[in-house]
Amino acid sequence: MSRFEPNLRIPGPTALPPSVREAGARQMVNHRGPEFAALLGRIQAGMKPYFGTTGDVAILTCAGTGGLETAVVNTLSPGDRVLGISIGSFGDRFAKIAEVYGATVERMSAEWGWAAEPAEVRERLAAGGRDYRAVLLTHNETSTGVMNPVAELAAAIREEAPDALILVDAVSSLGAVPFEMDDWGCDVVVTGSQKAWMAAPGLAMVAASERAWAAMETARMPRFYLDLRKHRELLEKGETPWTPAVAVAFQVDEGLRLMAEETPAGVFARHEVCAAATQAGLEALGFELFAEPAHRSKTVTAAWIPDGLDWKAVNGELKRRDLVLAGGQGKLAGKIFRVGHLGMVRLDEILAAIGTIEEVLAESGRLPAPGAGVAAAERAAIAVEAHRSTAAAGAR
Amino acid sequence: MSRFEPNLRIPGPTALPPSVREAGARQMVNHRGPEFAALLGRIQAGMKPYFGTTGDVAILTCAGTGGLETAVVNTLSPGDRVLGISIGSFGDRFAKIAEVYGATVERMSAEWGWAAEPAEVRERLAAGGRDYRAVLLTHNETSTGVMNPVAELAAAIREEAPDALILVDAVSSLGAVPFEMDDWGCDVVVTGSQKAWMAAPGLAMVAASERAWAAMETARMPRFYLDLRKHRELLEKGETPWTPAVAVAFQVDEGLRLMAEETPAGVFARHEVCAAATQAGLEALGFELFAEPAHRSKTVTAAWIPDGLDWKAVNGELKRRDLVLAGGQGKLAGKIFRVGHLGMVRLDEILAAIGTIEEVLAESGRLPAPGAGVAAAERAAIAVEAHRSTAAAGAR
Repeated sequence: MSRFEPNLRIPGPTALPPSVREAGARQMVNHRGPEFAALLGRIQAGMKPYFGTTGDVAILTCAGTGGLETAVVNTLSPGDRVLGISIGSFGDRFAKIAEVYGATVERMSAEWGWAAEPAEVRERLAAGGRDYRAVLLTHNETSTGVMNPVAELAAAIREEAPDALILVDAVSSLGAVPFEMDDWGCDVVVTGSQKAWMAAPGLAMVAASERAWAAMETARMPRFYLDLRKHRELLEKGETPWTPAVAVAFQVDEGLRLMAEETPAGVFARHEVCAAATQAGLEALGFELFAEPAHRSKTVTAAWIPDGLDWKAVNGELKRRDLVLAGGQGKLAGKIFRVGHLGMVRLDEILAAIGTIEEVLAESGRLPAPGAGVAAAERAAIAVEAHRSTAAAGAR
Repeated sequence: MSRFEPNLRIPGPTALPPSVREAGARQMVNHRGPEFAALLGRIQAGMKPYFGTTGDVAILTCAGTGGLETAVVNTLSPGDRVLGISIGSFGDRFAKIAEVYGATVERMSAEWGWAAEPAEVRERLAAGGRDYRAVLLTHNETSTGVMNPVAELAAAIREEAPDALILVDAVSSLGAVPFEMDDWGCDVVVTGSQKAWMAAPGLAMVAASERAWAAMETARMPRFYLDLRKHRELLEKGETPWTPAVAVAFQVDEGLRLMAEETPAGVFARHEVCAAATQAGLEALGFELFAEPAHRSKTVTAAWIPDGLDWKAVNGELKRRDLVLAGGQGKLAGKIFRVGHLGMVRLDEILAAIGTIEEVLAESGRLPAPGAGVAAAERAAIAVEAHRSTAAAGAR
């Protein structure tokens, strides 16, 4: 092992800031006592603005996938007609969960690397007869590095299929980019502690609209551990129905404190800068990005592995230099690699990552212009900063 | 807040040893990389002897209740006939989960405070026609402080209903007392990180027999997040299907290391000593224990709140003195209190707890013989130690 901490550039779990790590070492407390009730209250209050909701946010002990299952099983019944809009591996997973629990799922899949088109969704809903019980949406597709325009998609769904519940996988986006659940008319929104929240994995945060809470009264998919109504009942007492991942809750609480200190606008700006730097840097190094330019993710970037590049060797060398990237998932395994830039990510870490990739490519003789990667990353970051400053000045 | 760390005497989460706390502060790693694979391998290997199995142990990110749901939904189909043997609140919960997922559950309930009787179970199975698909058993009933004789109960079930799967809730017992899953013929056994394992909550460990793995191929209850087959598939790669609670896994790994250092026999002996001291101490203070003497738990003790004692006031004063106890659950709320003695518990903490209770009772004028509580606790602990030494000498 190196003396240095690795540059963990995967799309979650993310590297934790020191004070969040320390929070994970706190002594246990009674999860049915006053300290935990206060903690749960702070997490609730801290999360709501990022969801863009005034409603309750349930804190469940499970992975993001458990959060997606929570969205499905609490609001739907076997036989319900569901449109699963998928733009990648996690969209497919969301649809699969609804199928496993007996929903009749129609899939509408974009080509991987592309976002869903509001106009196409509108057409599809109209052609399908509009009587869908729910539409499944991915906000940020972690497998392809594409961020869907949820506001526009939700508006299209509301217009064409007003009675459909809109269930949103925002696991790897919420907290890193603006989201307005109530304004956009989303019904269930799911995120996970190990993504933008700067904490270890173990908690999923799930918010539901009043329409979704009402749907839970008649939904017949079986559920017990993931039953949201049990969570809501106990939220008032400051408890969760089952023993929660207390140490992860300590970390989420500290992460929210750091985010509040930075301000949400600051957090969003930082993600925008890091995304721009990553994408410009990789392109300058000759990598073709996987995602269409208009909807590239602010939290994870996917790039094609060029023909003829021995990625296994390159990646091994990157690891030896303490840069940890993610590979492709499912049908993209061995075809793309992914760089995470979410949570407590800073521009210097992105520059370090691009620099390390540049050095390894140089060794393999595949570098047209040494320094071009980091220079492009830095230029893109400064351009985003300048643009934001101008916009802010204009708004005054 | 006091300068002192509270004496957290609830039946989980338990107070963590310093090195386990530190493990919770480690930096994140790639959950699909070599460090995590090694960690998962160590946890697997470390857990198996405590389960008493040579089979796979799946590590799921959820509370113990999620572990119980895992046992049910992976092995059963809607309409399956199930006998739910309940001796308290958690036994009722186990049966309820099976019902929610469509099993036809017959309940066999012991009076709370009593263990299940093997002879009665035998009769019930014979009278019921023996064709049960599964029998649900609680090893340690956390709500009443009763430990069921699982070896004898499993033998009775095996004899009378040989085809029934035996699903065991060992959430708050495994790791604290001997368990022999393979020898006793148990099919699914569940435990949780925040109990004997000295770690924070967030992980459930679930082992299944070959018969249970076979049952999963035909079981039709819907499952996705808690699907054990997905876990088994990825165990070979050293991964979990969904992002695991990495920091809790760090802690469980360190807890297992401490337990190995102490040896399993040492861990079991410590729990026996602490249980005996707690029970003798409380009785000497005039409390009537809730559990029948023959099956008192080694991990949690429940006692009646005497008539006329203002428990709310007493408990408030105990909290001010940094002793945190648990109340009663469900129909026992306000009627009993519970003292946890599992995980990294030491005799001195039990003496401290009994002493604190003694001091508060003295203030309320309810103490016949000051010092009798701690003396009785100490005497009981020494007697257990002496008995164990004699037994060990005799065995040589």
